[in-house]
Amino acid sequence: MSEIRQDPATREWVIIAKERSRRPSDFAQSRIPRTLPTYSAVCPFCPGNETKTPPQVLEYHKDTSKSWSVRVFPNRFPALSPTGQLLTKRHDGFLVSLNGLGAHEVVVETPEHNQPMALMKDHEVLDVLQAYRERYLMLSQQPYSKLIIIFENHGPAAGTSLEHPHSQIVATPVVPRHLQHRYRQAMAFFREKGVSIYTEIMNRELTAKERIIDDTNDYAVFHPFASQRPFETWIMPKVSRASFGDVPLSELRELASVLHKELYKLRIGLQDPDYNFVIDTAPVRNRTVPYYSWHIRIIPHLQELAGFEIGSGIYINTAVPEETAEFMRNISATSEASLG
Amino acid sequence: MSEIRQDPATREWVIIAKERSRRPSDFAQSRIPRTLPTYSAVCPFCPGNETKTPPQVLEYHKDTSKSWSVRVFPNRFPALSPTGQLLTKRHDGFLVSLNGLGAHEVVVETPEHNQPMALMKDHEVLDVLQAYRERYLMLSQQPYSKLIIIFENHGPAAGTSLEHPHSQIVATPVVPRHLQHRYRQAMAFFREKGVSIYTEIMNRELTAKERIIDDTNDYAVFHPFASQRPFETWIMPKVSRASFGDVPLSELRELASVLHKELYKLRIGLQDPDYNFVIDTAPVRNRTVPYYSWHIRIIPHLQELAGFEIGSGIYINTAVPEETAEFMRNISATSEASLG
Repeated sequence: MSEIRQDPATREWVIIAKERSRRPSDFAQSRIPRTLPTYSAVCPFCPGNETKTPPQVLEYHKDTSKSWSVRVFPNRFPALSPTGQLLTKRHDGFLVSLNGLGAHEVVVETPEHNQPMALMKDHEVLDVLQAYRERYLMLSQQPYSKLIIIFENHGPAAGTSLEHPHSQIVATPVVPRHLQHRYRQAMAFFREKGVSIYTEIMNRELTAKERIIDDTNDYAVFHPFASQRPFETWIMPKVSRASFGDVPLSELRELASVLHKELYKLRIGLQDPDYNFVIDTAPVRNRTVPYYSWHIRIIPHLQELAGFEIGSGIYINTAVPEETAEFMRNISATSEASLG
Repeated sequence: MSEIRQDPATREWVIIAKERSRRPSDFAQSRIPRTLPTYSAVCPFCPGNETKTPPQVLEYHKDTSKSWSVRVFPNRFPALSPTGQLLTKRHDGFLVSLNGLGAHEVVVETPEHNQPMALMKDHEVLDVLQAYRERYLMLSQQPYSKLIIIFENHGPAAGTSLEHPHSQIVATPVVPRHLQHRYRQAMAFFREKGVSIYTEIMNRELTAKERIIDDTNDYAVFHPFASQRPFETWIMPKVSRASFGDVPLSELRELASVLHKELYKLRIGLQDPDYNFVIDTAPVRNRTVPYYSWHIRIIPHLQELAGFEIGSGIYINTAVPEETAEFMRNISATSEASLG
C-alpha cells in the first residue's frame, strides 16, 4: 500500500507510490551518453564568442592559462530586466500587474563546453559558488530585489537548450504567496521550538540515518522524508543562516566539495540525468531572520508531471526515498576516489 | 519589457516574458505526426484484452456494434487504493504520514486505439463525461474521499506511456494546503462581493474579449490573464456550481461539444501537442458551497519547467495570452465545419 507523507516544512502531502515504485537503478537513463566537444565555435558561451553575449558584470580569472574561469552577464532575453519604470502595481478592475522589473543573469561556469559541475575540480565549483554569492550580494542591494533565485538547468528536459555549463540568477520584485506561507510556517515553528524547522528536519534525518547520503563537518545531504520527486536531494548546512549571501568562505569551500560529489554521483549512478538545482534562500529583507535556513535542492528530471500533480498539487513519487538514499550511499562508497 | 501578472484566484504571480516570447504558431510541434492503428493486440485497453486489466466498475454500451463504448476499472498499479487500514495519521516525532487509502481509476474513453477525444464525435465525448460524473458521485460516497481529481494525460511529455485514449480519477483522503488556501481566497471574495471569483473572472474576460476563445450558451473558454503556461485554456461554466458532480445533463452535453472543439483546435493548431486536462472541483464536503465554481483547465505541454519555477513557484510564460487566444479564435473560424 502507498504511503502519504507530509512535508514538515510546507505541510503539503506527497504520495510515495510503493505499488508502482521502481527500483532506484531503474531510473538510470537509457539514452546514448552525451558526448560534447571541449570547444564549440557556435556556442555563445565558449571563449572567443564573448561579443555574442551582453557585456559581463563579473569575470573571474583564477587560471592564468585561460582568458576567464567564470563569467556572469545579463541574460540576452531576460524574463525580468533592471531598466524601466519604477515599481507600481497596475489595477484594471481586480486584475493586477507589475512591470517586469528585476534582474536575470547568466553564470557561465567554465570556459570548457563539456565540463559540467559533476566533472569539475572542487576549486572550480568553488569559483562558481563565489560568483553566485558575489552577484547575490550585489543584486540584493537593488531596490527591486525582493527574492533572489539561483538555479541551474542541466539538459533539455530540465529546461535548457544550451549545452555549455551555465546557471542563472533571477531577482524578482515580488515574493510568491506560497513561499510567504512557507516562511510563516517556519516562523511559527521557531517561536514554539526556538530552532529553524530545517535544522530540525536535518537533525531528525541525521538521527534516523536511513535517508542520509552524506554527513560532513558543515553539511548533511539526504533524500527528504516527503520527497516530491525521485532522487530529490537536499543539501542542508549545519549552521543555520537565512541567507546564502552570508555563508562564510570556509563553508562555501566545503559546499563546493559536497555539491560536486552529489552531482558526480547522480551522473554515474543514473547516467547523466537532466536535473535542476536551486539555492533556496530567504527573501532579501529577511536576510538575518533566525527561523529560516538556506539550503540546496537538487531535482533530477526522472518522471514527468502529469494531470494529477497539475490538478491537485500532490506529487506522486514512484521512488521510495529510503531506497534511493541507500542506492546513492553505495555509489559514494565505491567511487569517491575518482573525485578531484 | 516583461509583465508580472497576478492570478486573481490564487494571488500567485506569473511572468509573461514578452522579450523572450514566441509567436503562437511557433509552439506547433515539429515532430512526426502520431499515427496509430485502430486496434493493437498488445494494448491492455483494446477490446478483447479486458482480462489484462482489473474488472470494470462501470461499462457503457452505447453502440450496439461494439462490445463497450466506455470502460472504467481500478488502476492496476494504483497510487492510492480503497482497501487497507482505516485512516489514521502516524506521527513519528514531527514526521506525519497516512496509509495510501483512496481510489485510483482508469477511464478507457473509447474502444478505438487511435481515437483521442479531439477526434471523437460529440456524443462519444459526452459518454466519457457521463462516466466521469457517475464515478465522481460514487467515489464521493466513500469515507476516504476528501478530494476527487479527474484528469487526462495525453502523450509521453504529459506523463502517460499508454497510447490508448484514457483518463484517470483519483480520490484522495487529504486536501492539499495550497488548495485550502485557494478555497479560503474564494470564500473571502464571495463574502465581500456575493459572487464566485471564478464567475467574476469569466465575466471580466467576456467583457474584455481579448482572451476569449469561445462563448457559448453555458460556457466561456479563454486563456486566463495570468496563464502559467503557453496556451493554458480554461473552460468555465456560466452557472456556478462548486461540484462537477452536480452538472445537469443539458450542460454536460454542451460541455462535450466545447471540450471536443477546444481539443480539436489544439490538435490542428499546434499539431497534436501533448497535454493534460483536469477538472477542478470543490472538495467533497464543500459540494454545495456558493463561493467555488468547478471548471476545466487544459494545459498543453509546450515548455519544460525549469529551476526557476521549481525554486520560486513563479512561472515564466513565453507566450502572451492575448496572442495565443487570438490564434485559437482564428482556428475556430476556419475549421469548425469539420467537427462532428
